Amino acid sequence: MKSKFVVIEGLEGAGKTTARNTIVSVLNERGINDIVFTREPGGTPLAEKLRDLFKRGTDGELPTIKAEVLMLYAARVQLVETVIKPALARGAWVVGDRHDLSSQAYQGGGRGVDPQLMASLRDIVLGDFRPDLTVYLDLPPLVGLQRARARGELDRIEQEALPFFERTRERYLQLVAQDNSIVTVDAAQPLEQVTADIRQAVAQWLQQQEEA
Amino acid sequence: MKSKFVVIEGLEGAGKTTARNTIVSVLNERGINDIVFTREPGGTPLAEKLRDLFKRGTDGELPTIKAEVLMLYAARVQLVETVIKPALARGAWVVGDRHDLSSQAYQGGGRGVDPQLMASLRDIVLGDFRPDLTVYLDLPPLVGLQRARARGELDRIEQEALPFFERTRERYLQLVAQDNSIVTVDAAQPLEQVTADIRQAVAQWLQQQEEA
Repeated sequence: MKSKFVVIEGLEGAGKTTARNTIVSVLNERGINDIVFTREPGGTPLAEKLRDLFKRGTDGELPTIKAEVLMLYAARVQLVETVIKPALARGAWVVGDRHDLSSQAYQGGGRGVDPQLMASLRDIVLGDFRPDLTVYLDLPPLVGLQRARARGELDRIEQEALPFFERTRERYLQLVAQDNSIVTVDAAQPLEQVTADIRQAVAQWLQQQEEA
Repeated sequence: MKSKFVVIEGLEGAGKTTARNTIVSVLNERGINDIVFTREPGGTPLAEKLRDLFKRGTDGELPTIKAEVLMLYAARVQLVETVIKPALARGAWVVGDRHDLSSQAYQGGGRGVDPQLMASLRDIVLGDFRPDLTVYLDLPPLVGLQRARARGELDRIEQEALPFFERTRERYLQLVAQDNSIVTVDAAQPLEQVTADIRQAVAQWLQQQEEA
């Protein structure tokens, strides 16, 4: 099977790290061991610098929403062109913690950037490059925030009020409904059930890929 | 007269700093003294950080051409939204050392990014915001490079080979021909004549603005 790009998406506290471990274990069971991990925004020294500038700003100056979106895309295209595409080209699989869907949902939904603008920007910057499979961990924002707060990990983006996350989830759900390369898992279930659902979804998708 | 955004454009060594002083002196003679200066890429702490990252990269990593373009636009929209538009809104004039035309010419012409992509990106990011007047200092690249080299100021972009600057100038000339808000000055002339031409062009434009 040709190597693939698998992405995990969802709100803060949805369980992306656990999901990643589950996906990796399913891939390993199928004999897939050459796996490159990415996280976005970030994943290269330049992209991490942009992530830092985007999250904290500099000298007391924060990016405007449009500057934020452009910095995210600069980081993303850098990662895609220098890490993800070369990895796929040499036959490695890539498992990503977030990718473009996050921008569509957070900036296009949560921050209210025109979704058409977000989609145009994605097409201009990434062309037709897309993940082969996205596992979207769906969760009511309040549950996710309570989990994230328990870890003491809330940054500027995460501190936005609950309505921001409601709008983000709403946009996630709209986009998921339009795209059959995205599998939704109910992340509000007990952890064991979430893990079982992810295992099943990924295994089933792998089966389809092998048959295709 | 409503305050305006005047931009100086041209290849390295074309005489942008001298042109700026000339433009300011013409404005001052008309009683326009509240003038904000900008340079691009840069002009805010965040935009300067992006300029630095764009020119030097980080940890030995340089941006890909698309990441470069997006970082330039992030810096530009930050400057437009937090400096240029507020200055114009309070009645100040803005005189800019480079603006969007530089990206269209350098990245779209010199670096060979699809000009349609560059134009789409500009429209998505800046909407219909444009300079009121652009003074384009036209110069054969070889003359400009010799002048810039004499100042010992060549950076990564400037070290690109001559064909890069030929393509950049060609794109400048194409764009200038399509846009009547751009005045071309022959910057290969003796300095006094260049200055006289700039004075005349700006004075004439101001006259038209007053009559409009």
